[in-house]
Amino acid sequence: MNAEKVPDIIIGRLPVYLRALQRLSERGIQTTSSQELGEIVGISAAQIRKDISQFGEFGKQGTGYAIPFLIERLRDIMNVNKVWDVVIVGMGDMGHALARYNGFSERGFRVSMVFDNDPQKIGQKVGELEIYDIASMTEKLKQNKIRIAMLTVPATSAQEMADQLIKAGVKAILNYAPISLNVPSGVRVQYIDPVTHLQRMTYYLD
Amino acid sequence: MNAEKVPDIIIGRLPVYLRALQRLSERGIQTTSSQELGEIVGISAAQIRKDISQFGEFGKQGTGYAIPFLIERLRDIMNVNKVWDVVIVGMGDMGHALARYNGFSERGFRVSMVFDNDPQKIGQKVGELEIYDIASMTEKLKQNKIRIAMLTVPATSAQEMADQLIKAGVKAILNYAPISLNVPSGVRVQYIDPVTHLQRMTYYLD
Repeated sequence: MNAEKVPDIIIGRLPVYLRALQRLSERGIQTTSSQELGEIVGISAAQIRKDISQFGEFGKQGTGYAIPFLIERLRDIMNVNKVWDVVIVGMGDMGHALARYNGFSERGFRVSMVFDNDPQKIGQKVGELEIYDIASMTEKLKQNKIRIAMLTVPATSAQEMADQLIKAGVKAILNYAPISLNVPSGVRVQYIDPVTHLQRMTYYLD
Repeated sequence: MNAEKVPDIIIGRLPVYLRALQRLSERGIQTTSSQELGEIVGISAAQIRKDISQFGEFGKQGTGYAIPFLIERLRDIMNVNKVWDVVIVGMGDMGHALARYNGFSERGFRVSMVFDNDPQKIGQKVGELEIYDIASMTEKLKQNKIRIAMLTVPATSAQEMADQLIKAGVKAILNYAPISLNVPSGVRVQYIDPVTHLQRMTYYLD
């Protein structure tokens, strides 16, 4: 998988390519070009060809990419040819929204457990899932070998919760709290921050 | 502002640099280097220097970047040296979470109106904001010259709502629905998709 050899900035673009390819596939389209893909995702065709060529030869000059094949290869490369169990920590509005989000299945993820520390929420159901007490989190995460968590607690408790998750074996955290997390090497954090997306657009507004 | 000259992929990195600089600034740090910034955001120092140099000369060889100055310049470049009114369409869990999110202020945005079409929600309050009827949206957006919207409706109604927003003058849409929107040129869309962030991390997991 040569994780060390491919720059992370390229890895970050692969999910965007995969999403675009899956949408083309849903519309019954079988082949695409770096030009077409580039127009969909807003990245130059040259950059797309360069990124994808890091992982081997996929497209043919003149005939483009076979979409089903490229989807399968990208799923292999990104390790989403299986379903990962993911937990949610913090069942406020955002935690509920994520627990009910129907975009995870078929893209490699399944919300398997949700946690909160509010006695009024513990034991309640969100869809099929019961909200568990955070006090039981370390044990449950270890038992189920959970590696991935989404963190939707307030900023004030995000670092403490991240520390607990990491002690329980979590290696990847998707952080919705508006703070930077300190994590040891070997643990990955991604931030969901609506403001960075808004700022990317205001650049173009008068 | 030379919007046409700088590739959008660079524009997309500026908010990430700005966020990192603001966090350094909050800790009282006055100068930084492309190396330090690179470690924080996970982008190479060379790339950062190249990106920032698109907009002029900022750093000095050996002394690095003056953080307050670079923050101000980036805010100018991205048009967030003022406060933009933003509306939320769809007051489900995600809409509520965004309406209550406290990361907008001081970063250029203010949620000024929220909309839904559910009679049970219309007229309810979320913080200081009353939920307005979507039927009144076009008129209210035009009156208030709203240019930016966050779309948190179900996938099935996202395109219809986007069309309404655009007719009312909206030029930038942050879309939380898991579908691609068709928009005319001159309108920008950004997607918030937790799965792309998760997939970027599973690449590194065994």
